[in-house]
Amino acid sequence: MSELNPPSFAEAINAKGFTGAAGFRIVTITPGHAELALTRRDDLVQFFGHFHGGVITALADQAAGIAVTSGLPQGKIGVTVEIKVNFLAPADGNELIARASILKMSGSIGVATVEVFARDDRSERLCAFCTATMRALDLPAGAIR
Amino acid sequence: MSELNPPSFAEAINAKGFTGAAGFRIVTITPGHAELALTRRDDLVQFFGHFHGGVITALADQAAGIAVTSGLPQGKIGVTVEIKVNFLAPADGNELIARASILKMSGSIGVATVEVFARDDRSERLCAFCTATMRALDLPAGAIR
Amino acid sequence: MSELNPPSFAEAINAKGFTGAAGFRIVTITPGHAELALTRRDDLVQFFGHFHGGVITALADQAAGIAVTSGLPQGKIGVTVEIKVNFLAPADGNELIARASILKMSGSIGVATVEVFARDDRSERLCAFCTATMRALDLPAGAIR
Amino acid sequence: MSELNPPSFAEAINAKGFTGAAGFRIVTITPGHAELALTRRDDLVQFFGHFHGGVITALADQAAGIAVTSGLPQGKIGVTVEIKVNFLAPADGNELIARASILKMSGSIGVATVEVFARDDRSERLCAFCTATMRALDLPAGAIR
Repeated sequence: MSELNPPSFAEAINAKGFTGAAGFRIVTITPGHAELALTRRDDLVQFFGHFHGGVITALADQAAGIAVTSGLPQGKIGVTVEIKVNFLAPADGNELIARASILKMSGSIGVATVEVFARDDRSERLCAFCTATMRALDLPAGAIR
Repeated sequence: MSELNPPSFAEAINAKGFTGAAGFRIVTITPGHAELALTRRDDLVQFFGHFHGGVITALADQAAGIAVTSGLPQGKIGVTVEIKVNFLAPADGNELIARASILKMSGSIGVATVEVFARDDRSERLCAFCTATMRALDLPAGAIR
Repeated sequence: MSELNPPSFAEAINAKGFTGAAGFRIVTITPGHAELALTRRDDLVQFFGHFHGGVITALADQAAGIAVTSGLPQGKIGVTVEIKVNFLAPADGNELIARASILKMSGSIGVATVEVFARDDRSERLCAFCTATMRALDLPAGAIR
Repeated sequence: MSELNPPSFAEAINAKGFTGAAGFRIVTITPGHAELALTRRDDLVQFFGHFHGGVITALADQAAGIAVTSGLPQGKIGVTVEIKVNFLAPADGNELIARASILKMSGSIGVATVEVFARDDRSERLCAFCTATMRALDLPAGAIR
């Protein structure tokens, strides 16, 4: 079997575009799992001052993509076919934590679930639950330098 | 029956936080419908240079929320219970357009569908399809000035 | 390009197992679209006497599968990767009608939306809305006789 | 606080209509959790001879409804707002097992996740994963005798 994607691959992807600009941080990657964190900023919240649902979804999506990609052979990347998110409580902490795990890999399709927690100094609580369906895509040669 | 929320209400909400910072623009609001636009920026894209799925979801979510809120009595706002998005094609244009319509209002729950198009100078094409379930929440007095 | 699956293919599949036993009827199939009907029976309802949500989902799923399969080359069949259903109103008529349309075919993946209506002598009304993601599977040789 | 719904309530509901006819069996109910089982029959399968996706969804939906209803005050019942199911592997055993747990109760809305396993004499394996959003409805007086 070919080698799996190394964590550095996820780091390179995460540094780009929206995820880099918003400050998504990769906390840990183990095969089939990924944990990401995001610190609250005024340009990431909605009207009530909580993290915006789209930002929560972006973090969950990124975590799911990294978890699935960690289980793919080198040179392949998981892209999102569809994503479903339930918002369970106000995301009112000063940090979001997204923990993604592969539920099933089957051929070129991978499904992951993600729990997103809102965290402050005293506690963390589940604020969103996500299921994402990904498919494996060949990464263009030289795409990551 | 009480009066419905005016478009200025959506404008006030849209100007705040993430949606304001990312540059979400309200194109039109009619009762039960909302169209939003977002111009491509390097801090809104993913690894391949297309709009990030989380940003697409944020735009769809915002459009759904405005469509549902437009059908609620003044002082109430639609907040997202859950959202589901299928990504259908690369969001590679220089602008996103999200068109949301209420599918059903039932008591305090509203369901909307949203089509998201990637647009460039020559064409627009469907890049994502979204269904969102919202519930009506009382807005705190004085929340909008 | 190879020929598409003929409507007789869907008829053969529909006659089997649960869909045959429950009485699913194919009303029309055109490329990319399918309409199915189901007459109310006491063994298809839930506690309140309305069609059971699982039965509604089965009908929507079958309609989506036939719509997607109608757009696939002969010998391939669309199987469900995931399905999402919003229940919008009580399914209290004496017949269900499910109308499915392909939203997008992309490689081996197809996405369809389905509107399900509850119908009685006087009217029909939207009772459920569904989005289904399908993938193309090779049908074993001789599977349909 | 008022008393919660007793397991006998779920049994009464389960005996009716589709779930009674199909042979859904309640294995265990504890507060916030429900396990249901369903034995394979030729009128519950799809073309390939595996449990039909709609039947799998019905079992998951019923398990989610019982789990959520177990956490509601007496006289209230959880009805499905929306349901999302990923089909992960062929449901080819001689029995399905659905295990539902409440993820979050919040006002009149409850969210549950459900794992569905296909089981035969040797093993059980995850064949579907479901998230369901329910809302609490007042049960008509005398509805359960």
